[in-house]
Amino acid sequence: MPRYALKIEYEGAAYKGWQRQKDQPSIQGAIEDSAEIAGGMTGYVQGAGRTDRGVHATGQVAHIDMISDWDPFRLMQAINQHLKPQRISVIDCARVSDDFHARFSALERRYHFRLIARRSPAVIDEGLAWQVKHPLDIEKMRKGAAFLIGTHDFTTFRSSICQAKSPIKTLDELSISEHEYPYGREFHFTIRARSFLHNQVRSFVGTLERVGTGRWAPEKVREALEARDRDACGPVCPAHGLYLASVTYDPDPFKDGPPL
Amino acid sequence: MPRYALKIEYEGAAYKGWQRQKDQPSIQGAIEDSAEIAGGMTGYVQGAGRTDRGVHATGQVAHIDMISDWDPFRLMQAINQHLKPQRISVIDCARVSDDFHARFSALERRYHFRLIARRSPAVIDEGLAWQVKHPLDIEKMRKGAAFLIGTHDFTTFRSSICQAKSPIKTLDELSISEHEYPYGREFHFTIRARSFLHNQVRSFVGTLERVGTGRWAPEKVREALEARDRDACGPVCPAHGLYLASVTYDPDPFKDGPPL
Repeated sequence: MPRYALKIEYEGAAYKGWQRQKDQPSIQGAIEDSAEIAGGMTGYVQGAGRTDRGVHATGQVAHIDMISDWDPFRLMQAINQHLKPQRISVIDCARVSDDFHARFSALERRYHFRLIARRSPAVIDEGLAWQVKHPLDIEKMRKGAAFLIGTHDFTTFRSSICQAKSPIKTLDELSISEHEYPYGREFHFTIRARSFLHNQVRSFVGTLERVGTGRWAPEKVREALEARDRDACGPVCPAHGLYLASVTYDPDPFKDGPPL
Repeated sequence: MPRYALKIEYEGAAYKGWQRQKDQPSIQGAIEDSAEIAGGMTGYVQGAGRTDRGVHATGQVAHIDMISDWDPFRLMQAINQHLKPQRISVIDCARVSDDFHARFSALERRYHFRLIARRSPAVIDEGLAWQVKHPLDIEKMRKGAAFLIGTHDFTTFRSSICQAKSPIKTLDELSISEHEYPYGREFHFTIRARSFLHNQVRSFVGTLERVGTGRWAPEKVREALEARDRDACGPVCPAHGLYLASVTYDPDPFKDGPPL
């Protein structure tokens, strides 16, 4: 069976998450249904990251085994045709070898998080960013973030239902940039690692927001990390500011890009 | 009665436009209802621009006469409280003199238009930008736009139901910038004038998109303008890429800005 890698964008609000669930809208389920109607697939669509309910993606990757050979661009067009009017879009498609696995071949996952600080409701970005109504200090958040970089036991930042065998992960990047936002500021978090624990990114951002307000000293992030205790974590922030931005493979199946 | 100027942001999809209409959701109607519940107003909310159905705003301005004195920031907060869960937000509020009129005192209106060129559906920006599925040539669009700058009879770019007394307007700016967009390009139009005819901005953008595809030579924009004939216009583009971005007054009632 020929295997294809799909790069996928979605607006997560309408879905119970990536993973197919009985009688619930899911991104995986919508793509499987569309690929089946488009031309027949076998097995199921395997995603690189099982994003939670409400989380968005600008660069999720999945693989799919089709019954027959397809021109990759035509397959992308066919799946998109049947996805309408879902808020899910296949933005690239490539033929890959049989040993390519979207989840297990992934070398790195990158998430973005949008956090807006503004007093009045940010209605145009509603659902696309987490809004708080007080100012945040980026230097304090950066100091707190620095304690998290590297290889650590991240038990504090892991949800109680996380199924990973080990709480030890290596965080390669947790950087924050600040941008103009009308009548406020926007903070853009970039978080990069080979893999993540369940709720790890949202636990990081929720904790660092608390540091940004001044209620937590930056050093309290180190204490929380070293406690290896879920109760030491700050609040888990909402899902709707989070984007699975990219997944890295070697070789990159999408190096050519689709035609415009 | 004390008069207040409001700066307003809205996501236009859910509304039949700015103007209050019987039994139809409108931005004006929602603000009037909220201000009435918040503390009593007289007359009605006067907007600087009567945006059409589906058009967004990041900087609409309106004025309102309240029955009693308010601290402007508290008035903003009170109206926003009652606007929930509308996709409308008062982002600034200022006390103004009785002769301030949001519509008649306006010196300049600035619109933005977001146009995305990408093959696969842009689902995260769905409803927030106009998407086309073919490449566009910005230099050709700029050449076409140059013919429109200045004082002209804009009959060609005016809807048949436009109520303006004269079709002669002065266009101060029609600039286009190009930006990276994942798997495509985004074109950002800035259009600036003291005032506009009905559908003028959407007639400009729809016509220039046709130039960008190469189907219209840039010079055909000059011919269309000189024809002074609605039938010579290109297609009117969709409303959902259009934003009323700002309205200019002298003095600027919002020069201080609200506290974050």
